[in-house]
Amino acid sequence: MNGAESLVRTLKAGGVDVCFTNPGTSEMHFVAALDRVDGVRCVLCLFEGVATGAADGYARMADKPASTLLHLGPGLGNGIANLHNAKKARSPMVNIVGEHATYHVQYDAPLTADIEGTAKPYSHWVKTSASAATIAADAADAIAAARTAPGQIATLIAPADATWEEGAGIAAVPAIPERAKADEAAIQAAAKALKSGEKVMILLGDKAVRAEGLELAARIAEKTGAGLLAETSNARMERGQGRVAIERLPYPVDQAVAVLAEVKHLILIGSRNPVAFFAYPDKPSLIAPEGCNVIMVATPAEDQPEALARLADAVGATQKLVIPSRERPAIPTGALTPETIGAVVGALLPENAIVCDEGVTTGRRFFPSTHASGPMDWLQLSGGAIGVGIPMATGAAVACPDRKVVSLQADGSAMYTVQGLWTQAREKLDVLTLIFSNRSYNILRGELANVGANNPGPKALNMLSLADPDIGWVNLARGLGVDATRVESAERLAEVMKSALRAKGPHLIEVVM
Amino acid sequence: MNGAESLVRTLKAGGVDVCFTNPGTSEMHFVAALDRVDGVRCVLCLFEGVATGAADGYARMADKPASTLLHLGPGLGNGIANLHNAKKARSPMVNIVGEHATYHVQYDAPLTADIEGTAKPYSHWVKTSASAATIAADAADAIAAARTAPGQIATLIAPADATWEEGAGIAAVPAIPERAKADEAAIQAAAKALKSGEKVMILLGDKAVRAEGLELAARIAEKTGAGLLAETSNARMERGQGRVAIERLPYPVDQAVAVLAEVKHLILIGSRNPVAFFAYPDKPSLIAPEGCNVIMVATPAEDQPEALARLADAVGATQKLVIPSRERPAIPTGALTPETIGAVVGALLPENAIVCDEGVTTGRRFFPSTHASGPMDWLQLSGGAIGVGIPMATGAAVACPDRKVVSLQADGSAMYTVQGLWTQAREKLDVLTLIFSNRSYNILRGELANVGANNPGPKALNMLSLADPDIGWVNLARGLGVDATRVESAERLAEVMKSALRAKGPHLIEVVM
Repeated sequence: MNGAESLVRTLKAGGVDVCFTNPGTSEMHFVAALDRVDGVRCVLCLFEGVATGAADGYARMADKPASTLLHLGPGLGNGIANLHNAKKARSPMVNIVGEHATYHVQYDAPLTADIEGTAKPYSHWVKTSASAATIAADAADAIAAARTAPGQIATLIAPADATWEEGAGIAAVPAIPERAKADEAAIQAAAKALKSGEKVMILLGDKAVRAEGLELAARIAEKTGAGLLAETSNARMERGQGRVAIERLPYPVDQAVAVLAEVKHLILIGSRNPVAFFAYPDKPSLIAPEGCNVIMVATPAEDQPEALARLADAVGATQKLVIPSRERPAIPTGALTPETIGAVVGALLPENAIVCDEGVTTGRRFFPSTHASGPMDWLQLSGGAIGVGIPMATGAAVACPDRKVVSLQADGSAMYTVQGLWTQAREKLDVLTLIFSNRSYNILRGELANVGANNPGPKALNMLSLADPDIGWVNLARGLGVDATRVESAERLAEVMKSALRAKGPHLIEVVM
Repeated sequence: MNGAESLVRTLKAGGVDVCFTNPGTSEMHFVAALDRVDGVRCVLCLFEGVATGAADGYARMADKPASTLLHLGPGLGNGIANLHNAKKARSPMVNIVGEHATYHVQYDAPLTADIEGTAKPYSHWVKTSASAATIAADAADAIAAARTAPGQIATLIAPADATWEEGAGIAAVPAIPERAKADEAAIQAAAKALKSGEKVMILLGDKAVRAEGLELAARIAEKTGAGLLAETSNARMERGQGRVAIERLPYPVDQAVAVLAEVKHLILIGSRNPVAFFAYPDKPSLIAPEGCNVIMVATPAEDQPEALARLADAVGATQKLVIPSRERPAIPTGALTPETIGAVVGALLPENAIVCDEGVTTGRRFFPSTHASGPMDWLQLSGGAIGVGIPMATGAAVACPDRKVVSLQADGSAMYTVQGLWTQAREKLDVLTLIFSNRSYNILRGELANVGANNPGPKALNMLSLADPDIGWVNLARGLGVDATRVESAERLAEVMKSALRAKGPHLIEVVM
């Protein structure tokens, strides 16, 4: 077998059996090898940002890496923003990036670029294969790197001659170390704080916001009176009916500071000491108050449910929690606002849904109205690089073909990677997209004031507006093969959403605000 | 004035009065400053790849840099592919990339990334401003770097506090050195080769393919019997009626090798020693035959028309050329093929048009059928990173509001940066886009065989197909505010194209092949 086939077979043997791609000439041997290897699903994306975002969504739901196949430096470049999001979400991913044949790089052909330099800021592991003889072993190392806790981005650069020359067969993935256990001293410090009678906040992130971790954390909070919050952005929360209902640390810095203002001890489990999303004049970078005792119990790379179980024992929170049934909101009528949309979504989100949330300003307060929905997985934009929603929903649907994916999507962000709708159509993925059409980068209107750029003039405001012309989402979706409906009232949204949830396959609703 | 205003005023004073942007929080002070500075045009793009591609198209037509305004590492990442193209086209460009406030970077907020590391592979000059006191001087240095021959990419990273703190006023752009003159020994070596009676090819690139250089080169060729070719990809050719008609070195490696097979002396003027676009097994990387005498007369950074004038003198080609009038092709009827489309385009391209050519396989043989059209400027994809066409047309139209821009666009490439149509609609740019809808990455079908990956199976072929679902370009364009028409015959294409060329403003024709 040639190098390409040994690469594809090694990926498959290592459990990496889905590839999101937009290939070019240098990747043709990889593409050709797909027909000689059963059981690897290759999904075409019309832009590389869709491929990397889909691999992120896939990894969040499958808890294992997908691969991407990208075309030299510029193809990798197009994927960077969603690699950034995946890195911040700690999603495992194996990128295969084609490169000119080893002997051809020196000639600086038009597509020649510094691929390693492009990859490094957005990858934990980068290697260029030297030859077909080593490419399988390199791929095995890449898989091991990707699967190293808490989840990493591995980028393997594959020169064309390393794919077309004779390869060395399949390589086995090296053993991946177990997640480290949390330090006992940190558990004891947290237990002491929890028993101190002083105000304590437990901040959860990473795997601690799945059902098991949430239940343990809620027990601890109930037993000790501590507060409980999730991080502002979470790669994957298990939430809704039958699960612990918690809120997130707010995005706006003033609100976040207010939430933690009186906290004496901040216990971190799978989370980081919270920082402001941006710097603002005369506002702090660190959210916790000065002098707050910050206790890192379990890092994102450590075993968080195990740490929570030990902490629960240490404070005597041994009784499994009874989670009360909650009531969904009623379906409202009238204009589409963040509140009425949140109520419709809360009323209708089905059991076992996967929710991809890039709702930005519209979606900011959706948690309270959806605590009784589902149960469901809730995936958020993690690195702040807008344009992850449509790709993430695409990848999640590939990972979980039997589940309904609901993509809650801001309009400005959706435009970044709108090409992903075509992949949803081609693969007949069961994704319902709600586009929140407020025709504005609405978040920036608030940010202008926050950074002290007050009294914006018409030129500034024009840069925040998506109007003139309005984007016609029904036309756009249909052009990409996805059927779509436009709604202008809450009752009509409910009606169309009900019907779309009953059907299978992709659909888009333009929610006109 | 604050740092942002001193930055904007310095850009304007340095002649950089157009900004293509997709801004975020860290860029809000720059955006706000636009309302306090007259004469800077800020153009909103819904994706950063549109912004960098538009700045490339602008620079090619204006012969000076535009600026881009991008949002941190991921925003810059989204712009990389078209920065790559601009770098290979030697287009001057000044990128302003927002960054967290200097004191905030250490906290690794969600959008934190290595911006300098992201910029370096695609920039000639990179700097992070230390403070508001230096940002104007840094911007002046960036403009000087961008304008240094042959045209460079300068990336200035602007921390948020360097924009909101008090700035130091306007900085003047340092003097930019004149282009160097070609070495006299090289001119004499070329003259000797041209007089040798042996087979000589003159290969033109960069500024040598504008009207003046072409006329001088054609004189030399006519006088000496040398062959004359342009490089495969050219940032901007002045061609068509009244101008010298030359062909380009073919893209397919076998054809390119055949064209140069008998050449004993290869004279390079503004061009590079040609290399294969990709490596292929058993095909050469260098196109010129072994033992060919390659003479670099004028590098892209040197004054090419001046070198051509001296070379013309040296061989006695002092008589100005009379360029014969040529006849346009007749408008054909029947199915839309590369040949019939080429004939319609050749018959109708108007005088003074700007043609942006990302026609890929469909457009590969458009030169012969368009030698009698125009006269016009012809801009090509320069770095092989597909997705430059729509943005480049957008930028060219901003640079030249009184000229018709005709965007010849392959469908697969168009999908990369389709968001650019919206900017054409918002700015009411006079761009006619022809989408060559062959529903395929057609170029890769040939490349599969070229790299020796023969007998592709259904999975491989599926990765090269844009069908299932077909992209509905009329819907897509209308969704983005651009009116569109679908045509299925050559005569209908001619009819619609005639009417669209008479009208002003953006229009798209879906050319169904």
